[in-house]
Amino acid sequence: MPIPAPAADSLAALLGARFSTSAADRELHGQSETFHRAPPPDAVAWPVSTEEVAGIVAICHEHRVPVIGWGTGTSLEGHALATQGGLVIDLTKMDRVLEIRAEDMQVSLQPGCTREALNTELRATGLFFPVDPGANASLGGMAATRASGTTAVRYGTMRDNVLALEVVLADGSIIRTGTRAAKSSAGYDLTGLFVGSEGTLGIITELTLRLHGQPEEVASAVCGFPTLDQAVECVTATIQSGIPMARIEFVDADAARAFNRYAGTNLHEGPHLMVEFHGSPATVKEDAQRFGELARDFGGTGFDWATTPEDRAALWKMRHGAYRACLALRPGATAVVTDVCVPMSHLPAAVAAAAQDIREAGLIGPMVGHVGDGNFHSQLLVMPGDEQELAAAKRVATRMAERALAVGGTITGEHGVGIGKRPLMRAQHGEAVRVMAAIKAALDPQGIMNPGKLVPDVN
Amino acid sequence: MPIPAPAADSLAALLGARFSTSAADRELHGQSETFHRAPPPDAVAWPVSTEEVAGIVAICHEHRVPVIGWGTGTSLEGHALATQGGLVIDLTKMDRVLEIRAEDMQVSLQPGCTREALNTELRATGLFFPVDPGANASLGGMAATRASGTTAVRYGTMRDNVLALEVVLADGSIIRTGTRAAKSSAGYDLTGLFVGSEGTLGIITELTLRLHGQPEEVASAVCGFPTLDQAVECVTATIQSGIPMARIEFVDADAARAFNRYAGTNLHEGPHLMVEFHGSPATVKEDAQRFGELARDFGGTGFDWATTPEDRAALWKMRHGAYRACLALRPGATAVVTDVCVPMSHLPAAVAAAAQDIREAGLIGPMVGHVGDGNFHSQLLVMPGDEQELAAAKRVATRMAERALAVGGTITGEHGVGIGKRPLMRAQHGEAVRVMAAIKAALDPQGIMNPGKLVPDVN
Ligand SMILES: Cc1cc2nc3c(=O)[nH]c(=O)nc-3n(C[C@H](O)[C@H](O)[C@H](O)COP(=O)(O)OP(=O)(O)OC[C@H]3O[C@@H](n4cnc5c(N)ncnc54)[C@H](O)[C@@H]3O)c2cc1C
Ligand SMILES: Cc1cc2nc3c(=O)[nH]c(=O)nc-3n(C[C@H](O)[C@H](O)[C@H](O)COP(=O)(O)OP(=O)(O)OC[C@H]3O[C@@H](n4cnc5c(N)ncnc54)[C@H](O)[C@@H]3O)c2cc1C
Repeated sequence: MPIPAPAADSLAALLGARFSTSAADRELHGQSETFHRAPPPDAVAWPVSTEEVAGIVAICHEHRVPVIGWGTGTSLEGHALATQGGLVIDLTKMDRVLEIRAEDMQVSLQPGCTREALNTELRATGLFFPVDPGANASLGGMAATRASGTTAVRYGTMRDNVLALEVVLADGSIIRTGTRAAKSSAGYDLTGLFVGSEGTLGIITELTLRLHGQPEEVASAVCGFPTLDQAVECVTATIQSGIPMARIEFVDADAARAFNRYAGTNLHEGPHLMVEFHGSPATVKEDAQRFGELARDFGGTGFDWATTPEDRAALWKMRHGAYRACLALRPGATAVVTDVCVPMSHLPAAVAAAAQDIREAGLIGPMVGHVGDGNFHSQLLVMPGDEQELAAAKRVATRMAERALAVGGTITGEHGVGIGKRPLMRAQHGEAVRVMAAIKAALDPQGIMNPGKLVPDVN
Repeated sequence: MPIPAPAADSLAALLGARFSTSAADRELHGQSETFHRAPPPDAVAWPVSTEEVAGIVAICHEHRVPVIGWGTGTSLEGHALATQGGLVIDLTKMDRVLEIRAEDMQVSLQPGCTREALNTELRATGLFFPVDPGANASLGGMAATRASGTTAVRYGTMRDNVLALEVVLADGSIIRTGTRAAKSSAGYDLTGLFVGSEGTLGIITELTLRLHGQPEEVASAVCGFPTLDQAVECVTATIQSGIPMARIEFVDADAARAFNRYAGTNLHEGPHLMVEFHGSPATVKEDAQRFGELARDFGGTGFDWATTPEDRAALWKMRHGAYRACLALRPGATAVVTDVCVPMSHLPAAVAAAAQDIREAGLIGPMVGHVGDGNFHSQLLVMPGDEQELAAAKRVATRMAERALAVGGTITGEHGVGIGKRPLMRAQHGEAVRVMAAIKAALDPQGIMNPGKLVPDVN
């Protein structure tokens, strides 16, 4: 269903060359990082201002054209695919840092700004924005998926670090949510509602974020373990002991193998933890020492400390390259990437069960995780076109989610719902999916905002 | 408008003696801590289970009877008053701690459990629940108002510490929101939506809360300052310097005077800061030292350290007694209690402007505040029946809120909206109040849940 001609005319009049229906532009905005596939959108728009976003959405509202926000397209559950056609709003031209208020540790910016660009701008201020998905995602996309990453164990997720938003609603009207105060009890938490709503309730056109002081001292290390169980049990013990970890990442044997091949590292090909400590020189030393003792109790060996900033950068570059490195384990493969999150005490059993499922299914599926939150991922490698393998991988992902639910966890700790996790929403939320559907219907009665995502069909 | 007879019959059949229309029971549930007044509710119910709450709400839904949740009735903006008549659901008989999961640092409990009762049950576990409004409020009421208090600067507010809820919706159906995982990206943040909704979207019947480790070492102190400006500027400097304060409370000269009279203390009758540090012995020492140096830079003198647990308890008992102590400054008076919250850099000017407004209005209005969050209160003392004085106090409160908005702050940092702050909701949220109204209408189409509160009328 192409964009109706009057809508296309209005959009072209509003945006000129920043509205396109060319095959190339559409194809570029029809791709997903993972195995999810859909036809490309019918058109793409590149607004440069909130007013333009409002104008675009108002036109789409009038003509009932689906509207899909697009940050950097790195989401993993097919979030940004135009499954019902329509217009992609690409926000990359709205990428300005608007105001750094160092004295309040806050920044306001446009949604297309990426986390790396933001941190580059912040460098001289002594502040940084901690939320850190592997990809260099847009802050708008990160808010829309309630992203987190390696540092959430210390600094929280996007839920904790977004103070205020400007949002264009489904009818093209513009609202502001939240304030610059550290807390507020003035009514429903609309900021929290839009964070994690995956573009199904509105388009985020501005964000105000909390910043954090750059730590005085940083220490990072990688450490090997004899078995997966010992590595993960060490994590649970570490968190329960209250050591304030800045990062604690799990990497399984397959992932370590992938790093060695892809990044030229020389890790022993077994499970590892990658850790980081932030604080004053004294507290970092104390924390690292306490962790070191715990790790040794669980058989941890071969502590490799990254002492220079360059070594640390290399360490985390390797970790952030896990997705590509693991893909390269099986040339030509695509991935079913799945993430779940469980209460800390259930983490060892959950990771062990997932490993067994993967083995029994005969799949290659490296596992990594932001395990300090109880969050872990599997990247199940499948050959495009092999439907049997895809079905097996999806079964493993579903079982991981079901096991997480059985122990009080969640079907996704950070990647979000998109289309991939949508069939599991009722299993997690039960009748509460009706509340989500009621909110969706109230704010987007025509169902034009990223239709077919997040909210399951309720009868 | 009394409860329709068929509804009263059904409620009596369901609850027996735990349903009452007696004048005494109604009066007890028609009182507010502050100057807000309304006729008592038409009836009171004391359910003992979620199923009973669901049954009560279903009956009220059928007969369109307003339903008002009631925790301990300590809210300050007339939240729990039956302004449109109806039934109060008193949750004090649902006060059980259901499950402490120390290994995951979580607790599940019923909404009528108070914060002091919870912390008593937790004492042996090495864990505690930090959110600490002065009153011994119910956890359900605290969630419903998004409460915080003295420790929010370190441990966050109810927004940050509620993981999951069970809620009875306006039609009597029961849903569960959230999970026991530390984070989740599985759809709209319904937990966050119900936290702070003041009973206007549903009745909370169970909560799962995050717990925190009892600090190994605690140190508290009170310290005087020559001027209000110096005390508050010291706070801003302390927060900007990144010292991890566990508590940092401001008390003005009037409040200090009130403590001396009421609690028999011997404070100099000028502004003070009351501070607390949590951590290891080494970090507490370091933090206290850094704060001490800063305080001296701002003229702080007469550091009085509370070294024993008993001294600390006395110190915070005095702080928590501020409301009663200040009331006693003017025997027979009632209070217009108002709270606002501003970005840290605007705190000194905001407090100074409020002090001047109070002075110019000729009112007695002691000020205290959880200033580490940029949050402060004034307790404006007015004589019941003196309409002119009441109008003057309301004007001061409104000006405090307007000044907070002008610098990007909020009309209420923690007390909530109730009826008192409702006329200011549009000034803070603009068109976003329509989104709140749309959500309210979607979840409570008959408008029976705590009607007339929080959400302003939109045409
Ligand atoms: C290698 C790799 C590693 C990753 N690691 C992590 C990780 O550690 N943690 C984690 O959380 N995620 C991770 N991800 C997933 C991904 O990076 C995050 O989901 C990220 O938040 C997506 O941002 P984006 O800008 O690419 O959004 P997109 O993919 O462009 O969009 C995501 C969703 O948000 C919507 N959207 C985008 N912008 C807006 C807007 N301004 N307003 C409203 N809706 C909008 C889209 O419609 C879509 O539904 C990883 C991905 C890759 C490829
Ligand atoms: C001396 C004093 C000091 C205070 N200090 C602080 C402070 O430092 N910080 C702070 O945040 N507040 C403070 N308050 C205000 C008050 O204590 C908080 O608002 C508290 O959260 C109210 O809890 P409650 O149980 O008394 O709720 P109530 O007053 O009984 O109810 C409050 C609101 O929540 C609703 N409600 C209650 N229970 C439920 C439920 N289970 N489900 C749904 N809705 C429900 C009610 O309908 C009402 O709208 C103070 C009050 C006093 C009197």
